Amino acid sequence: MKDIYAYVDRHRDRYVEWLQEICRQPSVAAQDRGMKETAAMVERYLKQLGGEVQLVNTSGFPVVYGLFAGESDRTLSFYNHYDVQPEDPLELWDSPPFAAEIRDGYIYARGVADNKGNLIARLAAVDALLNVRGRLPLRVKFIVEGEEEIGSVHLPEFVEMSRDLLQADGCLWEFGYKNADGRPQVSLGVKGMCYVELICRGANTDLHSANAAIIENPAWRLVWALSTLKTPDERVSIAGFYDKVRPLADDDRIVLEQMIYNEEHTLEKLDLCSFLLQLSGLPLKEKLIFQPTCTICGFQSGYTGQGAKTVLPAEARVKLDFRLVPDQDPHDIIQRLRQHLDQHGFSDIEIDAYTLEHPARTPLDNPLTRSVVATATEVYGIRPTIMPMSPGTGPMFLLCQSLGIPAVSVGVGHFASNNHAPNENIKVDDFIQGIKHIAAIIEDFSRQS
Amino acid sequence: MKDIYAYVDRHRDRYVEWLQEICRQPSVAAQDRGMKETAAMVERYLKQLGGEVQLVNTSGFPVVYGLFAGESDRTLSFYNHYDVQPEDPLELWDSPPFAAEIRDGYIYARGVADNKGNLIARLAAVDALLNVRGRLPLRVKFIVEGEEEIGSVHLPEFVEMSRDLLQADGCLWEFGYKNADGRPQVSLGVKGMCYVELICRGANTDLHSANAAIIENPAWRLVWALSTLKTPDERVSIAGFYDKVRPLADDDRIVLEQMIYNEEHTLEKLDLCSFLLQLSGLPLKEKLIFQPTCTICGFQSGYTGQGAKTVLPAEARVKLDFRLVPDQDPHDIIQRLRQHLDQHGFSDIEIDAYTLEHPARTPLDNPLTRSVVATATEVYGIRPTIMPMSPGTGPMFLLCQSLGIPAVSVGVGHFASNNHAPNENIKVDDFIQGIKHIAAIIEDFSRQS
Repeated sequence: MKDIYAYVDRHRDRYVEWLQEICRQPSVAAQDRGMKETAAMVERYLKQLGGEVQLVNTSGFPVVYGLFAGESDRTLSFYNHYDVQPEDPLELWDSPPFAAEIRDGYIYARGVADNKGNLIARLAAVDALLNVRGRLPLRVKFIVEGEEEIGSVHLPEFVEMSRDLLQADGCLWEFGYKNADGRPQVSLGVKGMCYVELICRGANTDLHSANAAIIENPAWRLVWALSTLKTPDERVSIAGFYDKVRPLADDDRIVLEQMIYNEEHTLEKLDLCSFLLQLSGLPLKEKLIFQPTCTICGFQSGYTGQGAKTVLPAEARVKLDFRLVPDQDPHDIIQRLRQHLDQHGFSDIEIDAYTLEHPARTPLDNPLTRSVVATATEVYGIRPTIMPMSPGTGPMFLLCQSLGIPAVSVGVGHFASNNHAPNENIKVDDFIQGIKHIAAIIEDFSRQS
Repeated sequence: MKDIYAYVDRHRDRYVEWLQEICRQPSVAAQDRGMKETAAMVERYLKQLGGEVQLVNTSGFPVVYGLFAGESDRTLSFYNHYDVQPEDPLELWDSPPFAAEIRDGYIYARGVADNKGNLIARLAAVDALLNVRGRLPLRVKFIVEGEEEIGSVHLPEFVEMSRDLLQADGCLWEFGYKNADGRPQVSLGVKGMCYVELICRGANTDLHSANAAIIENPAWRLVWALSTLKTPDERVSIAGFYDKVRPLADDDRIVLEQMIYNEEHTLEKLDLCSFLLQLSGLPLKEKLIFQPTCTICGFQSGYTGQGAKTVLPAEARVKLDFRLVPDQDPHDIIQRLRQHLDQHGFSDIEIDAYTLEHPARTPLDNPLTRSVVATATEVYGIRPTIMPMSPGTGPMFLLCQSLGIPAVSVGVGHFASNNHAPNENIKVDDFIQGIKHIAAIIEDFSRQS
C-alpha cells in the first residue's frame, strides 16, 4: 500500500481543496438551504472519478448513488450524507461556519466532521486507488443521502425503490473519531431515535403577565409535563420505556471494559467537574453506549431577548430526542409518550414527530470489522478501540441490518470535533490518514471472504 | 365643564396627532432604543404648554418633571412613563408596532395603551384647561419616568434627589382600562414585583446530543428546579412565600364583590374554555387582585429554530416574575428563592435580579378617589368599578405610599388593549373621553380638601 499512501501524500493539497469546496457549500436540511447544489456537487465528484451515478429523487432531498466496478464481485458500500446541522449559535464560531478556514492544522466548518470530511476521504481513497492501480480490487457503492440530520425521513422510499442497489458484503458507516490519546474508534452500531416537538398552547396571544394570576401559562404546563417524563436520577418515567432494553451481554461487557474512554480529557475540554450522576469507568461507558436517553434539545417560550419583559406566553415548545437502544422501537416509544402525557393530565399537549429511527447493531466478529481493525493498526500505528455501538444515530437498521449487511463505522473526526456545535473541525492530518485507511480497507476487504 | 369638553372635541385631531407622534418614536428601555429622543419629546410637550420643566438625570434613563402653577396650593401629581415594552413577536402585529396606524376607530402601537395614551391625555387635559380658562385651578406636577417597563430601576435615585418635588395631595397613577361593558376601572394599588432570570450552565459549548447520556443537561436541571418552585395547583412552594400575604379584609371583600369582571368576554377574546384552576366569581377576582404569582415570562435553551437539531444545550435560561401583594417584600422573596434553590440541590443555578418593587395600596376612601369616581360617572355616564388593587405593578410604593400620598389609577385603555403584547391599541373615542375625565378630575379635586 506504500504506493497508494505516497500518492495520497503527494495530492494532499488537492484533497483538502475538495473538502474546502464542499464545506463552503451550505447544505442545511432542516432549513432547506443549498441542498440541490450540494447533491449536484457530490454527483459531479463521483462522475469525475468515473463512477456510474444516479441522483435518486424521493419526496425529500435526493440520494446520490455511485457505483464503481471492481476486479471481483465482492462489494463494499459507503454510507455518507451531504446534509449538515444548522450552524447556530453563530456568535460562538471563531470563523464563519461555511468559510472552511484552516488554522494550526485544523479545518473548521459546519459539516467538516459530520459528514463531509468522511465523504471526501472515501472519494479520495477511490481516486488514489484508481490513479495508482487503474482499477479497484472490489466493487464500491456510494450511498450519499441528504436527510441524515433530519432523521433520514424519506430514506425508506429510496430503500423501497432501490433495494437491489444496496446489496453489499459490508458497509462502511459514515463516521468515526480519534480518542484524546489519538486512538481511532471503530463502532458497530447506532442508537435509534425518536425526535419530537411538544407544543403547549395557552391564550391565543401573549398577554401582560399580570393576567398570569388567572390565565393558564403554557410554559408552566410544559415544565410540569416534562418533570413527569424524566426524574433527576435520569430515569425516564414513561411506563414500559425500558421494557425492551437488552440486558448487558457478557461479550459486550468485555468489549466495554476494553474500550478506552478518556474521562479526564473530556471533562477538561468541557470545563466540567464530573459526568452525569458522578459516573465513571464501566458504568459511565455502559450508560453512554447501552442506555437510552431523553434529551431536551431546545426549549422556547415567551420573551427571551435582552432585559425584562413581563409577558404571559401564548405558547411553549420543547424539542426532545430519545436515543434508543436495541430492541426499543421508536413507534412504540412515541405511543407510550402520548399515553404518558394523557395519563398525567396533559392530553392538550401536541406531539409533532420529526424522526423515528430504529437502533441497529452489527455482531462483534465479522470480516469487515477484522479488515477495519487490521488496517487501522497498520495505518495509525495503534490498535483501534472498539465501541459495540455508537451513542449517535443513523439509518443503519434501514440500510444494513434489515438487509443482513454488516456495518462498521470509522472516520476522520476526533474527540473534540464539535459535531453539531460551534467550531466543528477536523485535523488535516487525520483527514489524510483517513484517506489512506479507507484505501487500505478496500484492499484488505477484497482479499477476505 | 361643557366649555372644556367642547374644546377637547374641537381639537380632537390635534391631540390624536400628538399621540401618533410620540407612538411613532420607539422607546424600548430594555433595549435602550430611542430613550433620549422620547425624553426630549416629552420635555418639549411640557414646555410648549408653559410648564416649568426639569430633565432629571439618574444612572439610567432620565425622569422628565414638569410643574404647572395653579390658582391654589393644592397639588395633583401625574405619574406616567415614556418607555415601552419590546415589540416582539413582530410577526403577530397586523401593522408595524411604531406606525401608530388608525383602523376602525382604534389606534395601534406599542405603548399606545401603556403608557403614551395616558401621558398625552393628561397633557391634552392641561392644554384644554389652560386654553379655555387661562389658568389651572390647582398645581399640577408631571412625573414621567423612562424605566417603568424595566422595573423603575433608577427611580429611587430620583426620589432621593427630588423628594420635595414629589409632594402632592394626590397622585393620578399611570393607567386605567374600560371593562368589556364600557365601564371604567379605577384602581387603588399595585402589586409588587420580583423579576429574575435563572441561568443554568452545563458544558462550555453546545454538544451533539449523543453526549446527553453522560453529560448534564442544563435545560433538564432548570425544568426540575422550576418544578420545585410551583406545583400544578398554582401554589408557590418556596418556604414562607405566603407568610406576609394579608388575609382578605371585610371591606376588601365587599369591594371585590361589587367589582365587575366580565369573565365570558375575556375567555371568548382569548379563545379559552376556562380560567386557571376553573376559577370563577369571587375566588377568581380574589386571585387576580389579592394573590401573588410566579410566572414564566420566557424560557430559552438549545435549538429553537425550524426542524430538528440534536443538540445538548450548554445553557438554559428562564425569566420569572413574581407579582407580590401587601405585605410581601421583594428583597425577602429573592432571598427565599435563593435558599429554596440551594436547599433543593440547585445551588449552581444563578439568579440575576432585574426588578424588585414593593406592592402598594391606597385606602379605599380618600378625596382623590371620590373626585375620580364622581367625575367618571359624569363623563362616562356610568359609575366606574373599583379595583382595590391592580394586578399590575409599578413604583407606587416608592413615589406615593412611602410619602403618604394617596394614588388612584385611571386611564384611556380598554379590556382588550393588549398591553405588552402584539397589536396593542386604544380606542380613539376612549382617548378623547379620557382627556375630558382628567380635566374634570383636576377641576373637582381643586374644590375638595
